[in-house]
Amino acid sequence: MTIRAVVFDAYGTLYDVQSVAGVIEAAFPGHGDYITQVWRLKQLEYSWLRSLMDRYEDFLAVTRDSLNYTLGTLGLAADAALFGRIVEAYNTVSPYPDAAAALEALKPNHRLAILSNGSPAMLDALVRNSGLDRYLDAVISVDARKAYKPDRRAYEPVEHRLGCRPEEVAFVSSNGFDIAGARSFGFKVIRIERVTPAALRADLTGGAPIGPGTLSRALRTQSERLGFDPHAVVNALSALPEAVGRLDSAAQA
Amino acid sequence: MTIRAVVFDAYGTLYDVQSVAGVIEAAFPGHGDYITQVWRLKQLEYSWLRSLMDRYEDFLAVTRDSLNYTLGTLGLAADAALFGRIVEAYNTVSPYPDAAAALEALKPNHRLAILSNGSPAMLDALVRNSGLDRYLDAVISVDARKAYKPDRRAYEPVEHRLGCRPEEVAFVSSNGFDIAGARSFGFKVIRIERVTPAALRADLTGGAPIGPGTLSRALRTQSERLGFDPHAVVNALSALPEAVGRLDSAAQA
Repeated sequence: MTIRAVVFDAYGTLYDVQSVAGVIEAAFPGHGDYITQVWRLKQLEYSWLRSLMDRYEDFLAVTRDSLNYTLGTLGLAADAALFGRIVEAYNTVSPYPDAAAALEALKPNHRLAILSNGSPAMLDALVRNSGLDRYLDAVISVDARKAYKPDRRAYEPVEHRLGCRPEEVAFVSSNGFDIAGARSFGFKVIRIERVTPAALRADLTGGAPIGPGTLSRALRTQSERLGFDPHAVVNALSALPEAVGRLDSAAQA
Repeated sequence: MTIRAVVFDAYGTLYDVQSVAGVIEAAFPGHGDYITQVWRLKQLEYSWLRSLMDRYEDFLAVTRDSLNYTLGTLGLAADAALFGRIVEAYNTVSPYPDAAAALEALKPNHRLAILSNGSPAMLDALVRNSGLDRYLDAVISVDARKAYKPDRRAYEPVEHRLGCRPEEVAFVSSNGFDIAGARSFGFKVIRIERVTPAALRADLTGGAPIGPGTLSRALRTQSERLGFDPHAVVNALSALPEAVGRLDSAAQA
């Protein structure tokens, strides 16, 4: 059995969602970090709650609702044009600097795809704006199944779209809920560890106030205790070709 | 159609989960607020993720796993005795001061119950330790259905246990995810608003650093944008008899 496809989470894994903070800070000076963090935390929460209630709305709706919630906590409002511009920022988030080179190195021997919570229109804009579309064989949205990660329905389209079985897929994510969901589903999973335990601990115990950015990292960047651990952990996308190679050798052994 | 039963969420609604902070601060001086908030946020997150993955473990396991995660972010460890004492604090959280009087006032005309994520053993200890057991006709755990709120399976046992249809139940919660889930399920829903928008806004914009407690309130205490709003909102349990009376009159009109 070999690894035939490498499938990537988008937001937070190939793309840095923190890059929306600039647009937000410009719109609401002094609130960029708070809005960015609460928006992202509520966006994920709403995706989970809607899946649990079986009340799916697409990720654009979830992204708008969570931004509305966040601005409401501050008593702020944005007119339609500004609100639209902030939501649009999700379609132009920056790829991590090593994303293109990692995809290029993997491409000769693997099918490459994104599997994301994003709506088809959001993902289409995202991969075109960033130029990563040239490396990808498929851009798969959970929208076809009307359920968000880590609901197992969200992972099912990969098999059909790429023509490989779950154990032939190396799934790459930096998001704990996604790592657990993908492992529980049956993929081989590689975790990108962007914040080491030591770095987080230094932030939490260094004596500075624990603000929204630090608390968000504390909630979202560490190994989860859910019993579905990744097969491999790397600290950057640039380490993927080697990690996929190791998984491949192990699978063939 | 009348309101025949009043069913309460436990943690955060009848009981103040923030009351564990004292035990934690005594165990880990300087970290009481941070651990209390991250523990509670991850506890809920793990309950949602496990339901989504269909990998149920009971709420005691989820409570232990989320505490382990939280201590891990600080590089802290607790020996088994201390760890057990902190987890046990969930079984002795304080009822809100107006809980007993509200239950007593409602009892003559309604069946009264708790419906909670807590495991049967946790809930049994909780209601006995607090003395609220004397008012309750049933203490119902989601454990029977192996799914956490707001999964609709979590709300199903009420009908059977209390012998009333969903529209005959006034469901009371301060938790946004639970309010949406109960409304989506078909209950009449009363929201307890413990932090007003104005109070939160003052905390967020008063110039003081936004710490874990404030961020947690920003994430968990405001009206959600999920499209499943409560039928009534009150600011304390003491206002429930009147609010239930109004729902009852409306139902009979």
